[in-house]
Amino acid sequence: MCDKHSNNPGDASMRKFIQQTALAGAGLIMANPLSLFAGENAANGAFVGNIKSRGYAAKDASGILSLWEFERRPVGDNDILIEIKFASICHSDIHQLKGDWGKQQYPQVPGHEIAGIVAAVGRNVTKFKIGDRAGIGCMVSSCMKCESCKHGEEQNCENNATVYTYGNPESGSPTGITQGGYANNIVVNEHFAIRIPENISLEEAAPLMCAGVTTYSPLMRANFNRGDKVGIAGIGGLGHMAVKLAVSKGADVYAFTTSPDKVNDIKGFGAKEVIVVDDIAKLKPYRHKLDYMVSTIPAQYDIESYATVVKRGGFYTQLGMPVGQQLSLNVFAFARTGVNYNNSLIGGIPETQEVVNYCADKKIAPKIEVIKASQINDSWAKVANKQARYRYVIDTATI
Amino acid sequence: MCDKHSNNPGDASMRKFIQQTALAGAGLIMANPLSLFAGENAANGAFVGNIKSRGYAAKDASGILSLWEFERRPVGDNDILIEIKFASICHSDIHQLKGDWGKQQYPQVPGHEIAGIVAAVGRNVTKFKIGDRAGIGCMVSSCMKCESCKHGEEQNCENNATVYTYGNPESGSPTGITQGGYANNIVVNEHFAIRIPENISLEEAAPLMCAGVTTYSPLMRANFNRGDKVGIAGIGGLGHMAVKLAVSKGADVYAFTTSPDKVNDIKGFGAKEVIVVDDIAKLKPYRHKLDYMVSTIPAQYDIESYATVVKRGGFYTQLGMPVGQQLSLNVFAFARTGVNYNNSLIGGIPETQEVVNYCADKKIAPKIEVIKASQINDSWAKVANKQARYRYVIDTATI
Repeated sequence: MCDKHSNNPGDASMRKFIQQTALAGAGLIMANPLSLFAGENAANGAFVGNIKSRGYAAKDASGILSLWEFERRPVGDNDILIEIKFASICHSDIHQLKGDWGKQQYPQVPGHEIAGIVAAVGRNVTKFKIGDRAGIGCMVSSCMKCESCKHGEEQNCENNATVYTYGNPESGSPTGITQGGYANNIVVNEHFAIRIPENISLEEAAPLMCAGVTTYSPLMRANFNRGDKVGIAGIGGLGHMAVKLAVSKGADVYAFTTSPDKVNDIKGFGAKEVIVVDDIAKLKPYRHKLDYMVSTIPAQYDIESYATVVKRGGFYTQLGMPVGQQLSLNVFAFARTGVNYNNSLIGGIPETQEVVNYCADKKIAPKIEVIKASQINDSWAKVANKQARYRYVIDTATI
Repeated sequence: MCDKHSNNPGDASMRKFIQQTALAGAGLIMANPLSLFAGENAANGAFVGNIKSRGYAAKDASGILSLWEFERRPVGDNDILIEIKFASICHSDIHQLKGDWGKQQYPQVPGHEIAGIVAAVGRNVTKFKIGDRAGIGCMVSSCMKCESCKHGEEQNCENNATVYTYGNPESGSPTGITQGGYANNIVVNEHFAIRIPENISLEEAAPLMCAGVTTYSPLMRANFNRGDKVGIAGIGGLGHMAVKLAVSKGADVYAFTTSPDKVNDIKGFGAKEVIVVDDIAKLKPYRHKLDYMVSTIPAQYDIESYATVVKRGGFYTQLGMPVGQQLSLNVFAFARTGVNYNNSLIGGIPETQEVVNYCADKKIAPKIEVIKASQINDSWAKVANKQARYRYVIDTATI
């Protein structure tokens, strides 16, 4: 099997296998076919069975994950099979699996920041070959026919057909739902996989699939000028990427955090000023001072006070998603800010590719801590308690 | 006392009185001083006493108003006394007096759409003279020193010193709070009074003080072009003015109402299309069709679905204020709309003067029904039940 530093399909025997498979007209090209099939016998020449997978799943809404062996759908003509090398932990994983955003089906494997190596490709696949480095973010399917999908905004599919990477109904899946990346492999339509360039490590690329694009997308749309004052509220997995990306685009970044011990880190990320908001009054000196603000705070909070730091007529983008997906605004107080509010949700596939390329080229990497699978539950607790610095990345070889 | 058709101080005896007062150096010029003073004896030459007033007040949170005799503060050097002729009923009156937006002090006289005749002026007053036609909207004071106040945005006073027309603490008031316009007179700093031109009736001018400016302000800021598609959701007192104003500015107006029997009226106001939203699915054909949307719906509602009618990157202005002043957004669903949300709150004094002049010049009048004071409680019930067509205006001579 290809390792993470390899860009090409393996050795001579592998090349021979591929040639043979192609000659036989099989629809699927695999790096190591025999160990993956669940139900079918590869010796029959029919590479169509379900894929055996091993992951960490929630079995209920307790927020505790444990080992689970399950099956993925077969690799279709337009699919690739990725051997996952790294999957990072997003606060969304915790929210969703605990049922904070709605009732869930269990067992469910979370994880939508995925990086690995292509281990098999379907007959129509052109974007990847075996051994390529590939990532997956928050989506694995959409209608691909509507205006949004055709314009690379699959997350806004007009037919509401966006399928998220875990916990969404999926007819072809043996478990009935999509299963995410805290696992050793995944099957996905090639369109929804991202090419990971050589000049970024797989463990650093993983968090870009969600935290990267989710912050990059609104920052690019905001289209600010060099020297503009950009605020980032909530400096966790998303927020620290937002700081780095805004700095890279020439903004003077004002970072708002409730964690005093993050101040030095955040200055290291390039922020011009770090404001520790241990009292909401700390926002007062910044009243109407900023050109734009992004909040990653994933909870109900005093958004009317945070919005006062933006100049009248400016924009405020909320990225963090509270329990119940609901954020309550005081209409009266918000009116007085004169600020325009919007939400942003991840980004499309072309934009995800863009941020991965951008970060690889500019040497912008998330600050990560690689953990073993046995540390997942402990790490979830730390994310919820604001102790992550700043992204936990699971080495899936330890699952 | 001057009647509503007079533009000048009364007769020869009045002029003589004014001359005498001026000669005596008194700080106050009154049309009919003797009948108004509560505590002081005007015969002493000291025109400094409280003003006797008669109004309809809520005595508790029941939403029932009844007659109340009370006193207003004396007319100060920068104040004018207005003999109120008409005061119209805004849904906000009901919300506030029932405590929907917070605990209230009672008795409290509501009313912030006020039109009448100037009956007295303080010594420093230059904007008005006795007999002038004058209106009052939602505010009666602010700091007047901050950047917002100095730029005619008194509603956004940076020192949080905006005083609203009723129910706000006011040190000079005998009742401790401001008392509104369902009454026969009011004392106000001249800055916060609006000049009402001759070419609009007082009863039609009254609703412009809140409903007029509250809709005019965001529509002007939206700065749409002729032929742009502008949506108005909720066609009541505010909404019907929004339709008329947007039409007058050349917009193609799409009006969204839940009342089928309003359709003909709304077409009469100039709307291009009227959509009866008896099922939220009725919004689907308008998905991303409009350039801009204003909602006057004063309740929690399915704002994420309404916002889908606006094109991505467009703006959605919420004017209606729900119970508790809180509006809850589904962050996930709202993200998918791609729409920018803002709130707008009335407008500044210069802008209120502007909308009054604009409506007088363009012959744009609210559709009103003049009622007697004895009909106030019944009319409140009708406003709450969406039966108003479209603004009840109290003839204060009946109080």
